[in-house]
Amino acid sequence: MDIENIKKKLRAFAEERNWDQFHSPKNLVMALGGEVGELTELFQWLSEGGSMKGNLPKKTIEHAEEELADIFLYLIRLADKLDIDLETAALNKISKNEDKYPVELSKDNAIKYNRRNE
Amino acid sequence: MDIENIKKKLRAFAEERNWDQFHSPKNLVMALGGEVGELTELFQWLSEGGSMKGNLPKKTIEHAEEELADIFLYLIRLADKLDIDLETAALNKISKNEDKYPVELSKDNAIKYNRRNE
Amino acid sequence: MDIENIKKKLRAFAEERNWDQFHSPKNLVMALGGEVGELTELFQWLSEGGSMKGNLPKKTIEHAEEELADIFLYLIRLADKLDIDLETAALNKISKNEDKYPVELSKDNAIKYNRRNE
Amino acid sequence: MDIENIKKKLRAFAEERNWDQFHSPKNLVMALGGEVGELTELFQWLSEGGSMKGNLPKKTIEHAEEELADIFLYLIRLADKLDIDLETAALNKISKNEDKYPVELSKDNAIKYNRRNE
Repeated sequence: MDIENIKKKLRAFAEERNWDQFHSPKNLVMALGGEVGELTELFQWLSEGGSMKGNLPKKTIEHAEEELADIFLYLIRLADKLDIDLETAALNKISKNEDKYPVELSKDNAIKYNRRNE
Repeated sequence: MDIENIKKKLRAFAEERNWDQFHSPKNLVMALGGEVGELTELFQWLSEGGSMKGNLPKKTIEHAEEELADIFLYLIRLADKLDIDLETAALNKISKNEDKYPVELSKDNAIKYNRRNE
Repeated sequence: MDIENIKKKLRAFAEERNWDQFHSPKNLVMALGGEVGELTELFQWLSEGGSMKGNLPKKTIEHAEEELADIFLYLIRLADKLDIDLETAALNKISKNEDKYPVELSKDNAIKYNRRNE
Repeated sequence: MDIENIKKKLRAFAEERNWDQFHSPKNLVMALGGEVGELTELFQWLSEGGSMKGNLPKKTIEHAEEELADIFLYLIRLADKLDIDLETAALNKISKNEDKYPVELSKDNAIKYNRRNE
């Protein structure tokens, strides 16, 4: 995965259209939210089983692929604007999650770490 | 960026905790939505200028970095479950966007391609 | 339901705290999104059956009630700022939906009106 | 505001189409998220000033009205399914907010009550 390449393409895309004026982090967060909303619409009436890869209509997979791409692009663009390295951030978060969700406490349940005693 | 590595770590993480039972694409879409909601809360009362990297308090940047990581992790996990290659999807989408938003029509405006005549 | 009363309470609440400066429609849309994110987190790992009223833990219902309230409050506040009458808008939308989803086409399926031919 | 009337209309609408099978609380939460995503798209590139009622194009206000209606309808439907009284929940939440955001601490700032010491 060459994320640097995508980041540079997005920069060039915005620059050619003079779109940096719109790409404040605040606005990019909203754009990300809008795309997640579109993705959500694709899955809202499906059962969990019906949402599995093998059971999705081809049209829906293609549509989902476009929405995942939109989310990914806005995520990369937002990280660029905030000077955040996505890979480092992701690896750090996995480490944190290993501490918050130790196997012995989290096996077979997805209870949030701060709600274990509810 | 070694996204394959992150994908494998996430698979192992879920397997150890027996969490595949929770990770239907439908549920992962919701989890993604929840994380974007948390990110949104960080930016909702900021002005656009105040949301710029140089103007954000250190605490907020750290918090945003965690939320971006969460979003990225769920995105990778969802793409894995749907057998979608994020890099290919992203590059295809950039090409499409170049067609939908030609420089001469999109310079200095962010009007959606299908609302140009409104 | 005395929505006028709630609207006035929210106006007074904002005025006393000098919060109108934060309550642009754009910001209120984000705040609404943040609250929906919190609601989503409550339901993301539940099965559909597990999300039914009778199967939800009391704690979760209480929590959901708070999130629904937050969403409702921001919705009323946003409608106030945009001078939109929620009841009229809702009734108009129901009429539109009756046209878009005639019983004979929509019985037993939730296919979006503009995707019937996919 | 006759919310009972809207609730009954939505029940009848779902019953005629045999849609209760789709209207689990989990699914309705997703539907709410999808609609908020659509609303967000309308406001994402606007400045705060540009999002004010007086500055919005007529088309955008009409579109926003439809999205607010959709959000409201799903909110009512979800509250019905969870047996939550929206008005009571809203009034309770306003009282709680008065405690969490006392005027002397919250005047001119929108800092979240649990982040005052950050």
